[in-house]
Amino acid sequence: MFSKEPHSLHNAIPVEKIRYDEQGLVPAIVQDYLDGTVLMMAWMNRESLQKTLDTGETWFWSRSRQELWHKGATSGHLQKVQSIRYDCDSDALLIGIEQIGDIACHTGERSCFHQIDGQIVAPPGDTLSQLFQVICDRRDNPTESSYTCKLFAGGDNKILKKIGEETAEVVMAFKDDDADAIAGEVADLLYHTLVALAHHKVDVKAVYRKLQERRR
Amino acid sequence: MFSKEPHSLHNAIPVEKIRYDEQGLVPAIVQDYLDGTVLMMAWMNRESLQKTLDTGETWFWSRSRQELWHKGATSGHLQKVQSIRYDCDSDALLIGIEQIGDIACHTGERSCFHQIDGQIVAPPGDTLSQLFQVICDRRDNPTESSYTCKLFAGGDNKILKKIGEETAEVVMAFKDDDADAIAGEVADLLYHTLVALAHHKVDVKAVYRKLQERRR
Repeated sequence: MFSKEPHSLHNAIPVEKIRYDEQGLVPAIVQDYLDGTVLMMAWMNRESLQKTLDTGETWFWSRSRQELWHKGATSGHLQKVQSIRYDCDSDALLIGIEQIGDIACHTGERSCFHQIDGQIVAPPGDTLSQLFQVICDRRDNPTESSYTCKLFAGGDNKILKKIGEETAEVVMAFKDDDADAIAGEVADLLYHTLVALAHHKVDVKAVYRKLQERRR
Repeated sequence: MFSKEPHSLHNAIPVEKIRYDEQGLVPAIVQDYLDGTVLMMAWMNRESLQKTLDTGETWFWSRSRQELWHKGATSGHLQKVQSIRYDCDSDALLIGIEQIGDIACHTGERSCFHQIDGQIVAPPGDTLSQLFQVICDRRDNPTESSYTCKLFAGGDNKILKKIGEETAEVVMAFKDDDADAIAGEVADLLYHTLVALAHHKVDVKAVYRKLQERRR
């Protein structure tokens, strides 16, 4: 994460101050640290929170099995903890993680929050990640009327030429100091850059990872 | 959101199928639909979920006051619902919202998850939003050794020239079809674009909003 003074996990959470419920549990929201996607919600008791802090991997309390549960111990889909926060009432936790295998749900989906009325949908992350998923879908399932599909059909020379044009428009908008034009032109540049990434099958998360690495 | 077939709120959640706990409650995670920041976690009963679906604004059940609670009714910080999902066990909700006033917490902070061991920190959103916050902090609290501060000191002509250079490097990396170089050069382009946005005090969320609007 981009905090100026990185906190070690050990002093991130005052385990004694957390307000556990009458069953000794606190809800823990698990979030992808790169794109903000909420992957799952599970429950921690004091012991599983302490094990999470000690090991840097997530441990929960299984209410159905009534036992400690090391996430990923069976599936290999471990969660490497990047940050832990608690909320203003000290009765909920937010855990930023790197999801090994990019699968958090026992169904094999990336996120447990993958359904809208029974239909499988991509989990919501940030705007760029959402848009990147749509662009990849257009690449894999082309339709004639789609502007994005026309870009893919034109290949690198068409897509990269657009990136050059959009950059010139970005520069002009900044020079004009026109806030609305700036937002619109930067949006255009980002969209075409995502198309180029999709064309070369480079995930937008690879870009995020580069940005995170540089700040450490 | 970027779903191809937008779902109305009414059929997004089968209110009857949600598994409420012994107190008739289900945890609801509230997430900014633009940058993925988790803003708060609160509790819904069947009635508050139905009111949320009917009104398009969030309603919760206050466990301390034992009453329905229309978020923002007093403060004006209403939450406009963009999407609702439930998880694979049907016992947790994820609500994508537009936060009016950009403040969700009763303390005046943007997110309830703003503390690490008592110290106020920015909530984690996606990587670009995190980086944008660091860049704005460098702008407002300059230090001599910082590369970002040198860019700000050089103004538009220095920053925009770098955007042009980075675009050329992005084009070359794509032409070389080198995945690692592509990720690195796109990261550089995004970083310098964020510096230009910060210099002109245009929020990266304004760019996200443009991208979301275009897809509707």
